[in-house]
Amino acid sequence: MKPADTSIPKKNTPGKRHRTGEARRVQGEAGAPSFNARIEGIDYDVLEELTGYAVRRAQLSIYDDFAATLGVEGITPQRFSSLVIIGSNPGISQTRLAEVMGIARSGVVSIIDNFEQAGLVERQDSGDRRSYMLRLTPDGQRQLKKYKTAVREHDDRVAQQLSADERQQLRNLLGKLCIGPKA
Amino acid sequence: MKPADTSIPKKNTPGKRHRTGEARRVQGEAGAPSFNARIEGIDYDVLEELTGYAVRRAQLSIYDDFAATLGVEGITPQRFSSLVIIGSNPGISQTRLAEVMGIARSGVVSIIDNFEQAGLVERQDSGDRRSYMLRLTPDGQRQLKKYKTAVREHDDRVAQQLSADERQQLRNLLGKLCIGPKA
Repeated sequence: MKPADTSIPKKNTPGKRHRTGEARRVQGEAGAPSFNARIEGIDYDVLEELTGYAVRRAQLSIYDDFAATLGVEGITPQRFSSLVIIGSNPGISQTRLAEVMGIARSGVVSIIDNFEQAGLVERQDSGDRRSYMLRLTPDGQRQLKKYKTAVREHDDRVAQQLSADERQQLRNLLGKLCIGPKA
Repeated sequence: MKPADTSIPKKNTPGKRHRTGEARRVQGEAGAPSFNARIEGIDYDVLEELTGYAVRRAQLSIYDDFAATLGVEGITPQRFSSLVIIGSNPGISQTRLAEVMGIARSGVVSIIDNFEQAGLVERQDSGDRRSYMLRLTPDGQRQLKKYKTAVREHDDRVAQQLSADERQQLRNLLGKLCIGPKA
């Protein structure tokens, strides 16, 4: 049994559709296998040559490990990132958080509703409904500290076969992907 | 106007819920900003140090470029991978495809329903309903060839700042992530 007050309620809003058509990889869903990057006897064809697929493949494996580590708390990578950004940018608006996360404002509103319900984040009225200022509550700060420790452990496990130099090299190479002409 | 017969119908199955609680990054959704990996004035805190976040950040940027390139055809990275795997492993079962993709069998069934409707994939009865054999139709083969060309172009653009050696190095480093003790 896990204590009810430390977990964020799983969101299951009726009417939220699955609009891109990508099948969700659902934590704990019956029949959802964990991602195995290379299955014997399968010809991956062009996928083997694509940088994008290598990143996607890594991302799927990392997501599985993250879910196994923090999924029971109702924390996903996206929720974790949101909490971190609110924690290190107190007073940030929902609109700006949406921009940082690269998701629609409606998505952020729903994430924040959830955090508010769990008592981790509070919205402070700035006079303009569109620009609520977001802050962690004292409980949110405590929980985030705990999540950070768990995520660091997860991250170290994920990258355990890389030296510190290789991790830096990987970050540098990833940082050079998809940078438009403006950068 | 795009010719109706070359695009895969967008899936919008009622009742499909958004079960993990992660806000979807929806192609073309009103208000969904494209992902900007570094926004000025934002303190990313621990996220800057996490290998997992670097991978996620790259993945989000790549996804945006993929969507801009192939989204109009109704093709997502997941659908593209499915078509490639079916193309290079003709006769593969839905169960095995689910395993390769790391998604629930129900997700694969829905992807295949969609491809079947678009005339790209056919299910061949193997006598056991659970093990339909999947094959591309002649039209599926033609479309996949076209998609491969578009995806290669997208991938070259995404990785344009990396030399061939750096791309290989990146693939090697990514391949070392999240490998369990068995590997």
